[in-house]
Amino acid sequence: MSRLDSFIRRLEAQRTCLNHVAALIDRLDGIVLELGLGNGRTYDHLRKLFPNRDIYVCERRVAAHPDCIPPAERLLLGDLRDTLPRARAGLAGKVAFAHLDVGTGDAAANRALAGDLAPLVAPLLREDGVLASDQMMDCPKFASLPLPDGVARGRYHLYRRV
Amino acid sequence: MSRLDSFIRRLEAQRTCLNHVAALIDRLDGIVLELGLGNGRTYDHLRKLFPNRDIYVCERRVAAHPDCIPPAERLLLGDLRDTLPRARAGLAGKVAFAHLDVGTGDAAANRALAGDLAPLVAPLLREDGVLASDQMMDCPKFASLPLPDGVARGRYHLYRRV
Repeated sequence: MSRLDSFIRRLEAQRTCLNHVAALIDRLDGIVLELGLGNGRTYDHLRKLFPNRDIYVCERRVAAHPDCIPPAERLLLGDLRDTLPRARAGLAGKVAFAHLDVGTGDAAANRALAGDLAPLVAPLLREDGVLASDQMMDCPKFASLPLPDGVARGRYHLYRRV
Repeated sequence: MSRLDSFIRRLEAQRTCLNHVAALIDRLDGIVLELGLGNGRTYDHLRKLFPNRDIYVCERRVAAHPDCIPPAERLLLGDLRDTLPRARAGLAGKVAFAHLDVGTGDAAANRALAGDLAPLVAPLLREDGVLASDQMMDCPKFASLPLPDGVARGRYHLYRRV
């Protein structure tokens, strides 16, 4: 498999998971939290999936397409290890869906970051809220959810907040 | 359609076209020329499609994944408007497949660049050689080829050198 093949599979898995979560939380009130804006493509997808929910975005430094920059009042700028604890005052227990897409080519750094973030994301999610993540998240507050058809095990990760 | 949907479609169209060209030039001797390395994903795909052909790459400044950097003797560094005329001494008429992926979000700049590059790419291609391009290329030396199944008109462009 080439890197082009692998990249397309990853993006398709991501999209399939986001669409799947939209159905899962259909009857669950709450906001959406995008952890990592990047170029803004998944933020744009979330806007289309959730036109009636507020979408908050955490990003270190905005470098997205100009059409995909969230309104300032829902943009939390800085390192996730700083912004997530600060977000707790306003967002604790209010997030129906958090999407984390922060992986780099450095697997060890990815694992360390996921370990740091799990206890910071958990208090923001409401009961039965869903976390979709490109990283495995090991936390007693997260129960693994089955992946939708067509997504290979390990390519993406879904959790329900318990 | 979200930007995520659109991006996936573009990558799938690109891959379908590259695979299609591999079949088209199966019996045509010649090298492969990648115009624009980027992150190296399509270069990696070309390496897997054409394990027995030399692949030359033109790029302004290499920023690809370390695994996807071409050997120095087949890497032509600089602006395409400078490197393509210089490549003519060694490569004129020797290219069986040229792949051009240089588009940005600026449609007018893309058209201008495509207009500059068409007469510079044409002399490098051998007769019946194929050009695949993310930009429309208007040049009397290029005859449009039909797109493979599944690729929407205008999403990619295929030409045969006449």
